Amino acid sequence: MSAVDPIANLRDLIRCPSVTPAEGGALSALEAMLSPLGFTVERMVATEPGMPDIENLYARLGTTGPHLMFAGHTDVVPVGDEASWSHPPFSAEIEGGEMFGRGAVDMKGGIACFAAAVARHIEEHGAPQGSISFLITGDEEGPAVNGTEKLLKWAADKGERWDACLVGEPTNPDVLGDMIKIGRRGSVSGKVTVHGVQGHAAYPHLADNAVRGLLPLAHALMHPRFDEGTPEFPASNLEVTTVDIGNPATNVVPAKASFAFNIRFNDTWTAETVQAEILRRLDAAAGDQTLRPGRDKVRYEIVWAERPSHVFLTRNNALISSLSGAVEAVTGRVPALSTTGGTSDARFIKDYCPVVEFGLVGQTMHMVDERVAIADLETLTQIYGTFLSRWFGDAAVS
Amino acid sequence: MSAVDPIANLRDLIRCPSVTPAEGGALSALEAMLSPLGFTVERMVATEPGMPDIENLYARLGTTGPHLMFAGHTDVVPVGDEASWSHPPFSAEIEGGEMFGRGAVDMKGGIACFAAAVARHIEEHGAPQGSISFLITGDEEGPAVNGTEKLLKWAADKGERWDACLVGEPTNPDVLGDMIKIGRRGSVSGKVTVHGVQGHAAYPHLADNAVRGLLPLAHALMHPRFDEGTPEFPASNLEVTTVDIGNPATNVVPAKASFAFNIRFNDTWTAETVQAEILRRLDAAAGDQTLRPGRDKVRYEIVWAERPSHVFLTRNNALISSLSGAVEAVTGRVPALSTTGGTSDARFIKDYCPVVEFGLVGQTMHMVDERVAIADLETLTQIYGTFLSRWFGDAAVS
Ligand SMILES: [Zn+2]
Ligand SMILES: [Zn+2]
Repeated sequence: MSAVDPIANLRDLIRCPSVTPAEGGALSALEAMLSPLGFTVERMVATEPGMPDIENLYARLGTTGPHLMFAGHTDVVPVGDEASWSHPPFSAEIEGGEMFGRGAVDMKGGIACFAAAVARHIEEHGAPQGSISFLITGDEEGPAVNGTEKLLKWAADKGERWDACLVGEPTNPDVLGDMIKIGRRGSVSGKVTVHGVQGHAAYPHLADNAVRGLLPLAHALMHPRFDEGTPEFPASNLEVTTVDIGNPATNVVPAKASFAFNIRFNDTWTAETVQAEILRRLDAAAGDQTLRPGRDKVRYEIVWAERPSHVFLTRNNALISSLSGAVEAVTGRVPALSTTGGTSDARFIKDYCPVVEFGLVGQTMHMVDERVAIADLETLTQIYGTFLSRWFGDAAVS
Repeated sequence: MSAVDPIANLRDLIRCPSVTPAEGGALSALEAMLSPLGFTVERMVATEPGMPDIENLYARLGTTGPHLMFAGHTDVVPVGDEASWSHPPFSAEIEGGEMFGRGAVDMKGGIACFAAAVARHIEEHGAPQGSISFLITGDEEGPAVNGTEKLLKWAADKGERWDACLVGEPTNPDVLGDMIKIGRRGSVSGKVTVHGVQGHAAYPHLADNAVRGLLPLAHALMHPRFDEGTPEFPASNLEVTTVDIGNPATNVVPAKASFAFNIRFNDTWTAETVQAEILRRLDAAAGDQTLRPGRDKVRYEIVWAERPSHVFLTRNNALISSLSGAVEAVTGRVPALSTTGGTSDARFIKDYCPVVEFGLVGQTMHMVDERVAIADLETLTQIYGTFLSRWFGDAAVS
């Protein structure tokens, strides 16, 4: 039967040069795997003024519940210095038990394995007692404006509902079986601009150095820590990522200074409470007279960057225990249930159904010579297959 | 006799468009005033690779001691927005009792008055019992590389020695007679670069945010104050004048951050001890773990900018009391003996002889519509003349 071999699936996907925003043939290659299995495959082109159109794919097998979604992306980051690759980045060559290619682990490999697992499941058990769908975007590595978020809304507007979602991103730091991601911290960014009064360095009392206003504000956002972490999450952490004034004149005191920051916060907070805490800290620090003795509160303004990413934590036992049990059954390892790392498209999916993430080992993602162990492709396919059996079994009785 | 009228002298000087580095005819105009008085006038062209040649002037009357130097500059800053001037900036037009023109107070006016004072002194008393010289540069408002410092060395190498110097810069904040400058603070500048480790904002423990290293260093240089001032000097003051990182990526923690600073220091310090104190503060702050708990000392380097400007304070009683007494005799005001403000060419002269500064009211210097009250030109000429009589009288008996 078609698509049962994850190695062949991944080879076909890597050979499509689908660097964001190019589809590169990758979604068509996936469609060629899924259609023969009975999936109804739809292509959805998302558009946004001033940005390139993006092709996305939604495929469903079955019409009843329970409904399991597998989510991911076929777009890949640029190859970087192509001359530094041991093998051409879109050739999928195998050497020393590893397949080389851009997207091998992030995350064409995850898609290749899940397609193989579904094909084997159908071969062994027939169509599942419920539905399986693939929600695959071509805009995860890019601005992510024409990707998962729009695709979810498009599908939901058509009446699609899901009971659970598995995202196939590479989640394992070192070895397959290390880690399932069951949540992600939220993220808020902003820029603070401090206003002073320009003047000559020799007459500081006539000026109001914006740097003297800025330092306590930047300090107050990073100290003390926002929290010490929770059982499921690491501590929230704020980093001032840049400070910029651009004053070339040593004898001039600058009137304006600005800094940008980003905070990754856990479920002690919401995006709204974390923003309120930031405003509270800035307001308190604005009155700090250590560097500005006898002066009025420093004048500043804040601009919040983009939309915040909301924190989420999945507590769905059927989903987590099916996946964790499958990992342990196949690898003998009990995976950590982690909430570390950056944001992912799971932050959009969590508004529709419980979502977890599990895929390959991420060590070479985004690097030159991105590659995956051939043995891991077979192991991940077995994990996904065992998960399918367990989840449809569990979900059927729940 | 020639040159006795400061108004005519100043008119002749303003009409020479001597914006640095152009001589613009200004030194020739001065030569035309001094030669008829008996001065031996020399022009000295200073050169420096990669910089424009600069014309300077040295003129001496008399061959014996005591020897009084008058120092200043005929170059002027650019006119700025010429359309905003009430009168063309090189026309020396008089309106409402004021003469308009670039350089009117900074400091062609001072030169015009001193030349007039010398002419009147010779007219009344004959040549002075000693020597008077003019040491006038065309490079004070520019880089000051081909100006007073080289001119002094050139003259000293020829055997010139001076007993005292009066610099004719505008020293009065509001009214003629307000203020004599008897010293200047020193100035030291530098740039500090902090090194961290770049990383993703979501994995701060793998990175070392250079901003977390920078903030305590910048803070430590501005707090606490270096001193509380002395009877003669205001407090030393350090300003961080710029902070620059230039990291455009909100999710990336920067590996490098730098800031520049400038300190104006009083005679509690020398340039060397102030640099040592700065290094001591940086070293102490590098170990501050508030923002970097458990981390090693932050790595940083410092580059000192240019040559430092050394602090000086003139305590020569003959010079100060002659000048102060002349101001009081003519204006009825007891001038403040001040050390405020930026650096001046007096910082070079102080290595050769005691030096003080007194000139016009500086309010319009470097501005559009720079101008001087006609009455002030006459008053300053009288002050300079009284000073000449007193100083040669005092110096002769000392
Ligand atoms: Zn990915
Ligand atoms: Zn000047």
